[in-house]
Amino acid sequence: MTSLIHDASAALTERPSGHTSQLSEQGKAVRMRALTLLGLGTLFLTTSCKDSHIDNLEERSRLSDEVSLWPLPQQFQTSPVAFKLSASRFKIVHAPGSTAGPSCSLLQNAFRRYFKYIFGYVNEQGQPRSRVFDSELRELQVLITSTDPECDAYPSLKTDESCKFAVVFLTAFVVVFVVLGLETFSQLVYEDDYGVNNINKTSILDYPRFSHRGILLDTSRHYLPLKVILANLEVMAMNKFNVFHWHIVDDSSFPFLSRTFPNLSQQGAYHPYTHVYTPVDVKSVIEFARMRGIRVIAEFDTPGHTQSWGKGQTDLLTPCYSGSSPSGTFGPVNPILNSTYDFMTSFFKEISSVFADAYIHLGGDEVDFSCWKSNPDIQKFMEQQGFGQDYSKLESYYIQRLLDIVSSTKKGYMVWQEVFDNEVKLKGDTVVEVWKMNMVEEELQNVTGAGFTTILSAPWYLDYISYGQDWKNYYKVEPLSFNGTPEQKKLVIGGEACLWGEYVDATNLTPRLWPRASAVAERLWSDENVKDIGSAYSRLEKHRCHMVRRGIPAEPLFVGHCGHEYSGL
Amino acid sequence: MTSLIHDASAALTERPSGHTSQLSEQGKAVRMRALTLLGLGTLFLTTSCKDSHIDNLEERSRLSDEVSLWPLPQQFQTSPVAFKLSASRFKIVHAPGSTAGPSCSLLQNAFRRYFKYIFGYVNEQGQPRSRVFDSELRELQVLITSTDPECDAYPSLKTDESCKFAVVFLTAFVVVFVVLGLETFSQLVYEDDYGVNNINKTSILDYPRFSHRGILLDTSRHYLPLKVILANLEVMAMNKFNVFHWHIVDDSSFPFLSRTFPNLSQQGAYHPYTHVYTPVDVKSVIEFARMRGIRVIAEFDTPGHTQSWGKGQTDLLTPCYSGSSPSGTFGPVNPILNSTYDFMTSFFKEISSVFADAYIHLGGDEVDFSCWKSNPDIQKFMEQQGFGQDYSKLESYYIQRLLDIVSSTKKGYMVWQEVFDNEVKLKGDTVVEVWKMNMVEEELQNVTGAGFTTILSAPWYLDYISYGQDWKNYYKVEPLSFNGTPEQKKLVIGGEACLWGEYVDATNLTPRLWPRASAVAERLWSDENVKDIGSAYSRLEKHRCHMVRRGIPAEPLFVGHCGHEYSGL
Repeated sequence: MTSLIHDASAALTERPSGHTSQLSEQGKAVRMRALTLLGLGTLFLTTSCKDSHIDNLEERSRLSDEVSLWPLPQQFQTSPVAFKLSASRFKIVHAPGSTAGPSCSLLQNAFRRYFKYIFGYVNEQGQPRSRVFDSELRELQVLITSTDPECDAYPSLKTDESCKFAVVFLTAFVVVFVVLGLETFSQLVYEDDYGVNNINKTSILDYPRFSHRGILLDTSRHYLPLKVILANLEVMAMNKFNVFHWHIVDDSSFPFLSRTFPNLSQQGAYHPYTHVYTPVDVKSVIEFARMRGIRVIAEFDTPGHTQSWGKGQTDLLTPCYSGSSPSGTFGPVNPILNSTYDFMTSFFKEISSVFADAYIHLGGDEVDFSCWKSNPDIQKFMEQQGFGQDYSKLESYYIQRLLDIVSSTKKGYMVWQEVFDNEVKLKGDTVVEVWKMNMVEEELQNVTGAGFTTILSAPWYLDYISYGQDWKNYYKVEPLSFNGTPEQKKLVIGGEACLWGEYVDATNLTPRLWPRASAVAERLWSDENVKDIGSAYSRLEKHRCHMVRRGIPAEPLFVGHCGHEYSGL
Repeated sequence: MTSLIHDASAALTERPSGHTSQLSEQGKAVRMRALTLLGLGTLFLTTSCKDSHIDNLEERSRLSDEVSLWPLPQQFQTSPVAFKLSASRFKIVHAPGSTAGPSCSLLQNAFRRYFKYIFGYVNEQGQPRSRVFDSELRELQVLITSTDPECDAYPSLKTDESCKFAVVFLTAFVVVFVVLGLETFSQLVYEDDYGVNNINKTSILDYPRFSHRGILLDTSRHYLPLKVILANLEVMAMNKFNVFHWHIVDDSSFPFLSRTFPNLSQQGAYHPYTHVYTPVDVKSVIEFARMRGIRVIAEFDTPGHTQSWGKGQTDLLTPCYSGSSPSGTFGPVNPILNSTYDFMTSFFKEISSVFADAYIHLGGDEVDFSCWKSNPDIQKFMEQQGFGQDYSKLESYYIQRLLDIVSSTKKGYMVWQEVFDNEVKLKGDTVVEVWKMNMVEEELQNVTGAGFTTILSAPWYLDYISYGQDWKNYYKVEPLSFNGTPEQKKLVIGGEACLWGEYVDATNLTPRLWPRASAVAERLWSDENVKDIGSAYSRLEKHRCHMVRRGIPAEPLFVGHCGHEYSGL
């Protein structure tokens, strides 16, 4: 390779070289390789994991004004040396020796996506029309180094995202990191005064601080059309989120079409045809997410938040009593019937095969005991079990049996913090989600103290809107600010921005989520010392204009404008 | 006419009458007239103004579940008798004797618009394909009674909107009331279980409680593309708003392209080509609004809020001083130079011809005195004028001269409340806009006590968002709850919902404005006794689904769904 670099460098000049069409085919090949290799020193990803280092890489050098990186990479170094990119010549190619090639549809898909983001929809092939400048970036070479590139795999918590990458040699261990690197690469490209795409010589070494970076969307309180979910997965990728927490059903409606229990959505959805997610819909969400390195973790919350389940499944919910007779209303899942557990066994068997991720979210939050208390059969059961008047013991009894059922499907589970608080016996790999705003630090201390992994969502309930720049509050959160040992801190694997559905649907979800969730994205990705609000404001302002230019109605941070405003309604 | 009704009634049966194609042409004509006249008793507008009455019209009868009227009409009576509407046969026609005909493009435009709203984009002509039922509504006849139908006029404050109308004889004094009546008519149409459009026999007598029902949009802090403005004018018409208060320029940017002073936008807009309103743009906004009975009142706010003016007009703003030398920054308009008044004379001469409405909003709010205080020339002028240290006197001096300039253009003016508070001498027809939240009632009392007309916007600053159903707060406002004589109360001519632009642009404006502004719409239109929150919720929920079905991303009130969800992003 060295001789090639040398040969090529010798051919480079600072001046326009005239039409390449005048070059012989062989000369062209040499030039292209030369420019690529020249690019090699500008942007790259390292080939392996945390233990490898890029020499002379300074942290957070000053970026050119045109560029905004969000979230900020762990390490990068940039220079004023700029290269031009031509839509008719620029290629993203598989590097020699890469273990993934054109048959990897995940990569091909990402190449197409980012080519379009960088060049718009201009995609002209053929002879170059303008003069070729020496300082042109012709290729981004992508090198996958793992013997298993994981092209057809689903992303998982165990996929080691702490592998470093940098972006014109984009090297990564497995393919999902290339997708992240392409996002970074595309953010580095900027238009000069002539509208020409430029990229400055830059070295980046990057990896996330936390490996669980989630967005919760709620498709029960309002149904979200598939295109809204897909669009938001697209924006998640732009912000390096990697978990879609799909709060798919709840009291209000049951839009999940179960093959085993079709009556659940037939009766429990807002509409059995227009307001449901069919198996094909769910598959396409999962595949769309996989292409972007995003896990899909479905939540089927029980025993509370289940009113809609009761419409299509007789005897599943507890009949509430008014005095000595049933009132006609229903409470949480009925925990005292064997039929309940038979149902859950069949139901979660289906769920575990429909959703590819290794984890299922089982909910377990906000169980209202008043209906259980009213029911004489439940009272009798409490007595038999020796629970006294402690209904949280009944809740734990239910959850415990449910967890055993789900464990038998070989899935791991996530739960809301109440399940831990109520001292349910949990598997070691359980992820406890901390959502209650009061005593967050104590809870993190307790959960990690008990040895459980945890994610934080309490400070990031984005459905709570207020006047002004609330993104700053989300940004200022430090997830590890609780008292705990280094081992405890390591158990905090990330967090989630939650957009509960009471007040959002297709009409307003996307602008309400972005760029407010972007603040959470950087908090979960970048170094803990990246916390200057002024710097964040100026980068986030540009990042939101990036999103707008890509067709996303991300709302403004404050007074100002984008070069390319949103063109939808 | 009586004999015709009689003839026609004799031909009516309760059963399907078979294909009308079997009828002779003459028979068809008789049938159509018959059905129309039968419709005459169902929905109609009275022919004249407040002094006329419709017999037996009860207030607020119960509507069928499918229908939601928003804002609620003053009087209506409905019955379970339903008529079907066929897209291939239904016509909106000019009634015999109407003073407006097919040459009135305002009406033709409205006919087309509401036909599309009612039937979607199915617009098949030709032979009827299905059986004709007797209970079909074939025509909506529109009768304009004024000798001047005002087809080419601009709506004005003086257009007597208190003329009653009702919706199948739609009769109104002038054409703009027909537009309002068509909205009501379209809201009465609902789909039955077979997807057939139905309308129940209903009589409506309607007129607005307040004649100034405005929406303020701010195109300075963020530029709003023309399509966003037009879309929101469309939604305003759906809510019977009739004033677009266009806060067109402010500190942040100057997007108005002035022919006299093109440098103002050339230098002061965010971008001189992509972020400006050209004369043609402004014309099209005004015409689009006119077609919907909406006045466009432009605001050119001075002497404060003018930072962007200074970029393209030298010496217009006051140079601020730091100690004894200019600091390089600028304050409000410089009130001590003759050149300022020369500029304003030329500028408002143009404005008065560009904007057709009889009123211009001159602003006058939030003048910061610190820059004036720092400037030695201003200090000297204060001394010469004997103003002492009372800079509000200087402000009044400026405003007084400005008002005289604008008066000479034969326009009326609106001002923010400070101008009144500072005791500037105002013309009798000045409209004072009350916007300060503290002591609203005292201010209304004072303004009307001094004999000035006023509009209220203080409780309706919709840019202040919060979690939950804040529309209820807007709805509960009673504009006439202050202490005052009946004469004073009459001087409150309406109000405005203001969506200031700090945090909104094309990405999020429409869902943030609707249906929150709809709450203000009903408060300003309907009777003061229409204030039941439960009834409002259920009607507004349907009304927002109406808007969504018409392609408007109006956000949800709370948990639930629409039959036809928003299909944009």
